[in-house]
Amino acid sequence: MKVPNYIHFTDDPTTTLIEIIESAKPDKLALLVDENTRLWCLPLLERFSADLIIEIESGEKNKNLNTCQNIWQELTTAGFSRKSIMVNLGGGVIGDMGGFCASTFKRGIRFVNIPTTLLAAVDANIGGKLGIDFMGFKNHIGVFNNPMAVIVTDKFLDTLPKRELRSGYAEVIKHGLIADEKYFEKLRDSTFPEMDWQEIIRHSIGIKGSVVAEDPLEKGRRKILNFGHTLGHAIETYYLNNEKSLLHGEAIACGMILEAHISYQQKLLSKQSLEMICDYLSSIYEPVVIPTISEINELMIHDKKNVGMTINFSLINAIGSCLFDQQVSDKMITEAVYCYGNLK
Amino acid sequence: MKVPNYIHFTDDPTTTLIEIIESAKPDKLALLVDENTRLWCLPLLERFSADLIIEIESGEKNKNLNTCQNIWQELTTAGFSRKSIMVNLGGGVIGDMGGFCASTFKRGIRFVNIPTTLLAAVDANIGGKLGIDFMGFKNHIGVFNNPMAVIVTDKFLDTLPKRELRSGYAEVIKHGLIADEKYFEKLRDSTFPEMDWQEIIRHSIGIKGSVVAEDPLEKGRRKILNFGHTLGHAIETYYLNNEKSLLHGEAIACGMILEAHISYQQKLLSKQSLEMICDYLSSIYEPVVIPTISEINELMIHDKKNVGMTINFSLINAIGSCLFDQQVSDKMITEAVYCYGNLK
Repeated sequence: MKVPNYIHFTDDPTTTLIEIIESAKPDKLALLVDENTRLWCLPLLERFSADLIIEIESGEKNKNLNTCQNIWQELTTAGFSRKSIMVNLGGGVIGDMGGFCASTFKRGIRFVNIPTTLLAAVDANIGGKLGIDFMGFKNHIGVFNNPMAVIVTDKFLDTLPKRELRSGYAEVIKHGLIADEKYFEKLRDSTFPEMDWQEIIRHSIGIKGSVVAEDPLEKGRRKILNFGHTLGHAIETYYLNNEKSLLHGEAIACGMILEAHISYQQKLLSKQSLEMICDYLSSIYEPVVIPTISEINELMIHDKKNVGMTINFSLINAIGSCLFDQQVSDKMITEAVYCYGNLK
Repeated sequence: MKVPNYIHFTDDPTTTLIEIIESAKPDKLALLVDENTRLWCLPLLERFSADLIIEIESGEKNKNLNTCQNIWQELTTAGFSRKSIMVNLGGGVIGDMGGFCASTFKRGIRFVNIPTTLLAAVDANIGGKLGIDFMGFKNHIGVFNNPMAVIVTDKFLDTLPKRELRSGYAEVIKHGLIADEKYFEKLRDSTFPEMDWQEIIRHSIGIKGSVVAEDPLEKGRRKILNFGHTLGHAIETYYLNNEKSLLHGEAIACGMILEAHISYQQKLLSKQSLEMICDYLSSIYEPVVIPTISEINELMIHDKKNVGMTINFSLINAIGSCLFDQQVSDKMITEAVYCYGNLK
């Protein structure tokens, strides 16, 4: 398994961060936080100080161009140069948007991401996908670019609400389903959330890192990481414009059940495996109200993973193995949505 | 001399463009133009057609985030995907902003630039600098990324006002001054604007291409291309917020006179060379009203080429040779500004 060389596992994030910054010799240092990570996570980085702290409001709804303009403005007013560094302390929103702002400020300054959620540690911070939402579409504007460092620790997980931990865990389960049967079995044998998170984070980063190293720009095999995400993103987008909130992993858990159903209908997956997957996911995640089939179709038209008007899925052909660029008919999607309704 | 492999010189831009697009097999094709290039240049691309034509208002004042949002919106509404291609037909604004929009739409789609001005052909389209202005600062937000192709032809030069041609010519003169004494002599022996533009474009692209190939991210030697630009940019920025307009090359011509003066004061350049440079530039470019020294200092604080608060210049130590990272005192800048005033 291939862990990208910019990943630093540590039990002592303060020391690791200070060492990285000192050897990089920036002229100025900015820290991006939201109100939660400022309150709960920043105190765990005692001894670290920045020239500028930029605080944004938490939540996916703020992952947009307006917030970027505020960030760019603060960097500009404080006289940040190409030799400056930005440290992004937070979950996926902070890492994706902070990384995008750094990658475009004066055509790119260096940045360090410190994921504070399980989701960001095992998923968002590995693989160089940066960006913001636009016109209601997730990650619609962005770039591929790697941080100079990602500092990974399980020290921040205690600051997380259980619901956030559960959300991140969906990507962990996905890593087992698409690439590592034994890992999935091990997860099933554990009791959420009493798990060895340090070990899980390392293992999941190894799986994602290996897939990304093979295909960094998602021309081919990297697409297997989209298992559960084609329908999952549509559901997540639907909730973006909805009063009730749905976290990324909650949408992906739902997407994985639907797409496992499609894998079964396409005769790729056995009934036994399908049931095992659905049972396990249902034991962790409560069922959610999903959009109607016509709403889903509308939401998927702009899905980045489409080529023109054809909708391609990543589907599993066994637990621990995944295929990509699988064309799926509207009928199959409808049937999966129908089955999910019955499951509840 | 090294011409980047994505540059295509041609006498028949339509055929070259159609061949490039056909072999790239996009699912959709957008064309970005402004009102001028739509009227004067697009008709020269007979037989070429796009699925979507995006027209923006011409001029540096529109090279901003608002225009980008309009471009991204039009691409989104027309269902553009990662397999789509954008063709940017225009000068530096169209190439820089269109390239930035393409490079960030869905984390990057392919784009082809067709420079229609001398400035864009010899400068803006070589070297992968893309971006927009922000908070009054030039190219403050952007990325480094290369087009899949740049189609270079002198066919569009006839559509240019003479003032635009003269503006682009400043970068040509700069190429001689920083890297090729014989080229500068040849330019001096010609009569502007009756010149062999095809030959000049090829030669200038060769000089810029070689410098960029050596140092694509401008960590070192690429900085020599900034000769005339440290003060030139300050003057250009000053005019951005001014009623009177000043074109990029007009500001750079003025910047080169000022920075040649500084080169002389720093005892890098002989008096004879300084006079030769000033005489030639003054024979092509009318003197302009420049900001006061305190305004210049304020404008330069955020210049991208600064490291922290130190202002570094690229200075010539002979005609055809340039040094970078030369620290210059406020006093020297003041003196150069004073000399420029006397020159008028």
